[in-house]
Amino acid sequence: MHEFQLINKYFLELSKKNKSSLNLNDDVFFDKAKKLVVSVDTYVEGVHFINFKKPELTIKKIIRSSISDIICKGVRPKYYFISGSGNKKTFSPSNLKKISKSLKQEQNKYNIFLCGGDTVYSNKLSFTVTSIGFSSKIIFRNKAKLNDDIYVTGNLGDSFTGLNILKKKINTNKSLRKYFEHKYYQPDLFLDFSNKLLSFAHTSIDISDGLIADLEKLINKQKFSYEIRLSDIPISRNLKKLIGQKKLDKISYISQGDDYQILFTASSSKSRIINKTAKSLGIKISKIGKICSNQLKSQIIDKKGDKIAIKTKGYSHRF
Amino acid sequence: MHEFQLINKYFLELSKKNKSSLNLNDDVFFDKAKKLVVSVDTYVEGVHFINFKKPELTIKKIIRSSISDIICKGVRPKYYFISGSGNKKTFSPSNLKKISKSLKQEQNKYNIFLCGGDTVYSNKLSFTVTSIGFSSKIIFRNKAKLNDDIYVTGNLGDSFTGLNILKKKINTNKSLRKYFEHKYYQPDLFLDFSNKLLSFAHTSIDISDGLIADLEKLINKQKFSYEIRLSDIPISRNLKKLIGQKKLDKISYISQGDDYQILFTASSSKSRIINKTAKSLGIKISKIGKICSNQLKSQIIDKKGDKIAIKTKGYSHRF
Repeated sequence: MHEFQLINKYFLELSKKNKSSLNLNDDVFFDKAKKLVVSVDTYVEGVHFINFKKPELTIKKIIRSSISDIICKGVRPKYYFISGSGNKKTFSPSNLKKISKSLKQEQNKYNIFLCGGDTVYSNKLSFTVTSIGFSSKIIFRNKAKLNDDIYVTGNLGDSFTGLNILKKKINTNKSLRKYFEHKYYQPDLFLDFSNKLLSFAHTSIDISDGLIADLEKLINKQKFSYEIRLSDIPISRNLKKLIGQKKLDKISYISQGDDYQILFTASSSKSRIINKTAKSLGIKISKIGKICSNQLKSQIIDKKGDKIAIKTKGYSHRF
Repeated sequence: MHEFQLINKYFLELSKKNKSSLNLNDDVFFDKAKKLVVSVDTYVEGVHFINFKKPELTIKKIIRSSISDIICKGVRPKYYFISGSGNKKTFSPSNLKKISKSLKQEQNKYNIFLCGGDTVYSNKLSFTVTSIGFSSKIIFRNKAKLNDDIYVTGNLGDSFTGLNILKKKINTNKSLRKYFEHKYYQPDLFLDFSNKLLSFAHTSIDISDGLIADLEKLINKQKFSYEIRLSDIPISRNLKKLIGQKKLDKISYISQGDDYQILFTASSSKSRIINKTAKSLGIKISKIGKICSNQLKSQIIDKKGDKIAIKTKGYSHRF
């Protein structure tokens, strides 16, 4: 059973009385009256992060993944709580020192504060991060409008490439390795852009499970389809190089997740202001497709207009 | 290294800039300006709960343990988030159905709402619960005053006895077994009393790690000691019976934790109103000792006034 079905089948009913929970169908919990935005996520070694050989980097990835949920809704994160389950080795004095140092760097970078948490003994390493922000307004899922443009921030696929390099599935030179591993551990989050999103985005999500998987989540309650142009999906110069060298398939690199870029839709009339905002903040924004009537089938097309088949739509936790 | 030392050594600094975190030295996080009260706790199988043979009961224990942190501060919990890490077996359809049913019962009992969470794959079963309440005022730790009376709600030791019965360390008849197991899985939380606490308690904590361990946490930053009268520590009629039958040591049963009773201090002038409040709500409240000058040593005394040695002060997570 997929995590999605599981939530719907057993837990949806429990949140129904309470409007703020968004029926458990959004990245965050939002209480408009209290202006409260909350995200809770669990990260397990071997599932959500490759291992704990570099605790100082892994902890950054985990924190960014958590606050990304809030940032993609147009809100500034303010507080975080981290609960770690681990053993003597994972929480050795040397590792704790590294974790503490990294958390401090993230706090300074994103202006967030550690507010509590828990450390418990377990042989299986995992972290649960609760992030909190305050806002009277957020950008919801399932608010796309027909003919909306679909946008994405930054580049896709770098993080997945980094993961494959760490897993030794891809072999490349030192400089590319360093670049991709950095993107895997420390995805770029665009805090300043997030604030502006509220003024033009109809709906938004962060890409954690993969472009297609998250696009489908973004509009899962709406009777829409989408059309994505593969050539417009932004990838880095380095990924372009690697794809050329190794004859890789672009589509399988940009649909695997862990990108933490913001995927959003906006009316085509906002195109100018979006480009202007991105430019003024020095951020890359790409228009990659559009929201269509559900009389059409969702599709990804190549330069010639031919439909591309996707083998995997991204990541889903299966039980 | 104890969890306590660990937090102090590596993470205290990270919360210092932010007054609301209470320097990571309280049961909850409190943002007075936002009126926000948050508790985050992780529960691991074999550490915080015995096993998952009775998911419907274990889940109740976990939820109560989490909201107890908020209730003991004088605040009503409103929202909860639950993140479960488990495998196919722990999250089987039959177990999920039981979990969902129990959560519904807890929601109705305590007027709380499921707002989100996460299910992830792991062979080690654990849950992290984030509970949230709203209040412009809470009862802090470390606010005891000299000569304060020390009070506790309900009875102590029933839960630990239940755990020992479940572990087959104590053998008793069916009716006692049922009583103690129930107390282990479903500790009583006094929501209505919690509200009143704000008007008379100087400082409070819930007893999760053990009476003595939690009393020492309650005043750990204060230059005070305490005197506790063993005979005044409340135990149930059933525990009294069992202690008599099995010739058990009262002190080791009341200092082991998992009681989730509220431990608080108040000026002796509040004695009448506290008793009146308890009576009107039908709740048992016991005055068990007092806060003393730190020129005296903390002690537990028996009926004759002799000092009692404690073998274990309660539970602490050690790495």
